[in-house]
Amino acid sequence: MKRTCVLYAIISIIGLSSCQQAGKGSETNMPDPQAEELFPKGNKITGKNFTGTAWLQMMIDNDSTLHAKMGNVTFEPEARTNWHSHPGGQILIITNGVGYYQGKGKPAQCLRKGDFVEIPPNTDHWHGAAPDDGFAHIAISLNTDAGDVIWLQPVTDEEYSQSIK
Amino acid sequence: MKRTCVLYAIISIIGLSSCQQAGKGSETNMPDPQAEELFPKGNKITGKNFTGTAWLQMMIDNDSTLHAKMGNVTFEPEARTNWHSHPGGQILIITNGVGYYQGKGKPAQCLRKGDFVEIPPNTDHWHGAAPDDGFAHIAISLNTDAGDVIWLQPVTDEEYSQSIK
Repeated sequence: MKRTCVLYAIISIIGLSSCQQAGKGSETNMPDPQAEELFPKGNKITGKNFTGTAWLQMMIDNDSTLHAKMGNVTFEPEARTNWHSHPGGQILIITNGVGYYQGKGKPAQCLRKGDFVEIPPNTDHWHGAAPDDGFAHIAISLNTDAGDVIWLQPVTDEEYSQSIK
Repeated sequence: MKRTCVLYAIISIIGLSSCQQAGKGSETNMPDPQAEELFPKGNKITGKNFTGTAWLQMMIDNDSTLHAKMGNVTFEPEARTNWHSHPGGQILIITNGVGYYQGKGKPAQCLRKGDFVEIPPNTDHWHGAAPDDGFAHIAISLNTDAGDVIWLQPVTDEEYSQSIK
């Protein structure tokens, strides 16, 4: 856990300045799927577990061999997951754009292409795009015999604005 | 296992034609770390488990929370791992260049940016670059309580040439 906290701290320090710069006068900037994306956007996500518009390209369904699940999620600006947790933990690998990860009770961390996040099991959190930028990440859910995801309440506009300012 | 085999088949069909094209008259083409790489090359790999020159950027060390390990491996043309297996399985996500994955007794599969491979537990295999191209992939070792990797013999020049022709 110490390593994870150090990673969070480093990402926070680096991320805060770059995201503050990105927010100043930048135009809305969606990832270009032809030029930069590793994976296709896939299907628009429906249901109540996301705010705003996001897409999911499933890559590996949960199976009894790897005990893992993998997909690529693409968020439009301001789009984000609900609060949720993973009983077996998850890894995010950022492939495009600018966005945030926030663990409950901790500062939101700004994330860019090439960053990654280790999400410990049973940790309430959300992830999603910055207000003026699209965002895409690979999500690898681990140890899925323990369960995949527990969805919670939406991240309200007020929570979102407060967290990333 | 059925899904994995179907994936292998699809990758093989798509990959064979594109890799054959890439090999014809192409110049040696290393990935450009500034322009395209998601991650830095990291440190040159030493020891007896690789043939040729490759680099490792460790991203997540094995830990007791996620039971997983993640790194980015960059191969020069012709560089490849020894034969090896993972007791808990592994996922490869190709981030740059052209290369191959081969499970023991199966055809080698050509891989490019955006492809991924599910490697089942305890499956002897190798991965590495094409003869005329660099290659980079993220490697996520899973369920590492079972063990991380069992290294075996090198992939000889003859095996390599025969597998990818």
